[in-house]
Amino acid sequence: MLEQLKQQVFEANLDLPKYGLVTFTWGNVSGIDRESGLVVIKPSGVDYDVMTADDMVVVDLATGKVVEGNKKPSSDTPTHLELYRQFPTLGGIVHTHSRHATSWAQAGLDLKALGTTHADYFYGTIPCTRKMTDAEIQGEYELETGKVIVETFRTRGIEAKDVPAVLVNSHGPFAWGTDPHNAVHNAVVLEEIACMNLFSYQLNPQIDSMQQVLLDKHYLRKHGKNAYYGQ
Amino acid sequence: MLEQLKQQVFEANLDLPKYGLVTFTWGNVSGIDRESGLVVIKPSGVDYDVMTADDMVVVDLATGKVVEGNKKPSSDTPTHLELYRQFPTLGGIVHTHSRHATSWAQAGLDLKALGTTHADYFYGTIPCTRKMTDAEIQGEYELETGKVIVETFRTRGIEAKDVPAVLVNSHGPFAWGTDPHNAVHNAVVLEEIACMNLFSYQLNPQIDSMQQVLLDKHYLRKHGKNAYYGQ
Amino acid sequence: MLEQLKQQVFEANLDLPKYGLVTFTWGNVSGIDRESGLVVIKPSGVDYDVMTADDMVVVDLATGKVVEGNKKPSSDTPTHLELYRQFPTLGGIVHTHSRHATSWAQAGLDLKALGTTHADYFYGTIPCTRKMTDAEIQGEYELETGKVIVETFRTRGIEAKDVPAVLVNSHGPFAWGTDPHNAVHNAVVLEEIACMNLFSYQLNPQIDSMQQVLLDKHYLRKHGKNAYYGQ
Amino acid sequence: MLEQLKQQVFEANLDLPKYGLVTFTWGNVSGIDRESGLVVIKPSGVDYDVMTADDMVVVDLATGKVVEGNKKPSSDTPTHLELYRQFPTLGGIVHTHSRHATSWAQAGLDLKALGTTHADYFYGTIPCTRKMTDAEIQGEYELETGKVIVETFRTRGIEAKDVPAVLVNSHGPFAWGTDPHNAVHNAVVLEEIACMNLFSYQLNPQIDSMQQVLLDKHYLRKHGKNAYYGQ
Repeated sequence: MLEQLKQQVFEANLDLPKYGLVTFTWGNVSGIDRESGLVVIKPSGVDYDVMTADDMVVVDLATGKVVEGNKKPSSDTPTHLELYRQFPTLGGIVHTHSRHATSWAQAGLDLKALGTTHADYFYGTIPCTRKMTDAEIQGEYELETGKVIVETFRTRGIEAKDVPAVLVNSHGPFAWGTDPHNAVHNAVVLEEIACMNLFSYQLNPQIDSMQQVLLDKHYLRKHGKNAYYGQ
Repeated sequence: MLEQLKQQVFEANLDLPKYGLVTFTWGNVSGIDRESGLVVIKPSGVDYDVMTADDMVVVDLATGKVVEGNKKPSSDTPTHLELYRQFPTLGGIVHTHSRHATSWAQAGLDLKALGTTHADYFYGTIPCTRKMTDAEIQGEYELETGKVIVETFRTRGIEAKDVPAVLVNSHGPFAWGTDPHNAVHNAVVLEEIACMNLFSYQLNPQIDSMQQVLLDKHYLRKHGKNAYYGQ
Repeated sequence: MLEQLKQQVFEANLDLPKYGLVTFTWGNVSGIDRESGLVVIKPSGVDYDVMTADDMVVVDLATGKVVEGNKKPSSDTPTHLELYRQFPTLGGIVHTHSRHATSWAQAGLDLKALGTTHADYFYGTIPCTRKMTDAEIQGEYELETGKVIVETFRTRGIEAKDVPAVLVNSHGPFAWGTDPHNAVHNAVVLEEIACMNLFSYQLNPQIDSMQQVLLDKHYLRKHGKNAYYGQ
Repeated sequence: MLEQLKQQVFEANLDLPKYGLVTFTWGNVSGIDRESGLVVIKPSGVDYDVMTADDMVVVDLATGKVVEGNKKPSSDTPTHLELYRQFPTLGGIVHTHSRHATSWAQAGLDLKALGTTHADYFYGTIPCTRKMTDAEIQGEYELETGKVIVETFRTRGIEAKDVPAVLVNSHGPFAWGTDPHNAVHNAVVLEEIACMNLFSYQLNPQIDSMQQVLLDKHYLRKHGKNAYYGQ
């Protein structure tokens, strides 16, 4: 079932150590088949060097029940499912504890757009969520994590497709994209700009978001109907 | 004697350069066989690329005497032995001068829990010891190093099994675990959070320890009888 | 046509990931044949690991029209062309979003000469351009990027051959040289001094440019008629 | 002539890129044969990947004249020779522009002993020289560089054998040892502590040199007649 998607999700998970985004098993990638309403996700706590495509777990988008696979899905599965349910343009999701993005999440700060590297991929500030309440943490924690991400985007008026990443306060980043591979791509970019913005603020604590017109220019030369970057 | 443990300790020592935790011979791993009261530890100052499992030295937990091996044990052996004697849950211990953890030790500062990466492994603040006294340094220095670590945990009411690492003031980190492999695993995590916390404080000098309830949630989903992370 | 230059430009592009200057496809190198007035440049958005020398695109220096090649040239081509037109000593140009140089560009700050590493390659401050105006960004943006670089060098009285790099405000670095290979060489040096200067300012925020006489000494022992470095 | 020393110097030079201490050709190692009064040193500006042991140049300690070799010696040769002449315990010298040590040199700051990593190799503060005068720079610059290093050690009462490294103001580090291999070893340690001390100062700007008794303990357990580290 969903052999192609399982292979894609498997390969996208292997890309996490390749790009230096994870230590040990601290990350997970999922992909969705919108037609069947099924999500493929990494199993929980399995080492990357023994994992196979067959270890990927298939879960139901609506119920979260395991439909196929003999391993437990990632403990973060309910977060992924909530994002897929509320953000219908998402085809893949990735969660990591990548070093610089997590440093910003621990600091509880948004990642403002400071340059064209950011603008090429993210159409404005990458938000950091509010802290979760005790009730949320003690309740269905992973589901509530998804809900606080959705709340962040809704209350700030950000479209998930325009800003394909978020920092979860005191935790770390989630990124997403049109498919699992694209989600990992965005996670790599997020980590890189998290590093560069740290250095930029150290050099000049007064800097603020870049000019809107430059943000527009770079984002729109790569995205939308007037894009002219690439082949 | 203890061939399996010697192999484990040997492999755990080789993991130190693999994970970028040591420069040259600046690190050592030991493991204990609680039944026989014998500890296996790396020899002193031997290069990682010529070391073999047979070079591991077997010492007596109570007396520190060499029981087997034709090399001198690590000069830090008395520190390891004191920790094994006072913390009976320990199965392996590692000492490194890993870059970021050592930077915190040199700064004489605790590593507070700032995020879930920390909470997944360490149940609260990783303490930095007080400075050692002249008498301690000029006396049985390596044994006294162990004693000041034990004092730090006792006076702060921290259980060694809940917080498997410490920063020795003006020196560097020790980490431990259920076996030599697990000890090195914790040393890798320690180094990673030492790096992230440095960056988080640079971004936001006002941040303090994370919410207790979030610390509980993450630590307890991976440890104890209600854990649900992993297979 | 220009097979040798295409090979050089191709190899210089491959050097970008080799030296850690680019993530994904975020960089481009070009080279010029001054006699024919033709420029060879990397195609837009093509992965480094599938790119071949035949993918390089030949464009006309004066008009920017593609003369040979079945791919679209880099979207930054008009910037390269303007630099070749206004700085006649340039034989190769490289654009990257390398981590530390981009951090300075995002901070909007010049890279002052703080030491002999800088002085061995750059004869004084590496300037950061002013921010571009809305009209420039909304007009022929990539051409205007070239113009603001040229304006920066002209108004500050800097010769492009003496300071073979620039930081474009809110964007990233361009570097150049006598040929594509030399341009990449200078981009590597730029990234290294951007990193070291960040650290030097963190250690001592009061430091200013090095002594002029030491700058002269190091630059001139490697450049010009009295050079005595190398074979 | 001196085939063994040439091989040692050649291998020590190759260790510079291996340990990440140099970019391109920015470093050089030499070794001395005290009996014959001859110094073997890397040729100037030769790429590490084409260099052979036969490229090493033999120069006379007293006169600096090339005694053997068909290449020009490193432009820094007069600095090496002055150090060998004034510090008779030196068997090997290395100069690099390694990232963190150079950052401190650019900041014009001493590297104080903040922890046992430092104390294991350097018996106290690693000094940064004063800035050189215009006359020194415009005169026999490389020889004067050696003289200002010697002056720094003499006026501060530091023995070269006890503190085997120095930071040359606005320039970068020199390190030395009992032979070329040991000199490179010390240069690696210098770079590591330069990195850790940067981080320690960022975490705690108030920290000062470690306790003298702890410095004594660590240095003397590895050096001198009462050493007990190693086999």
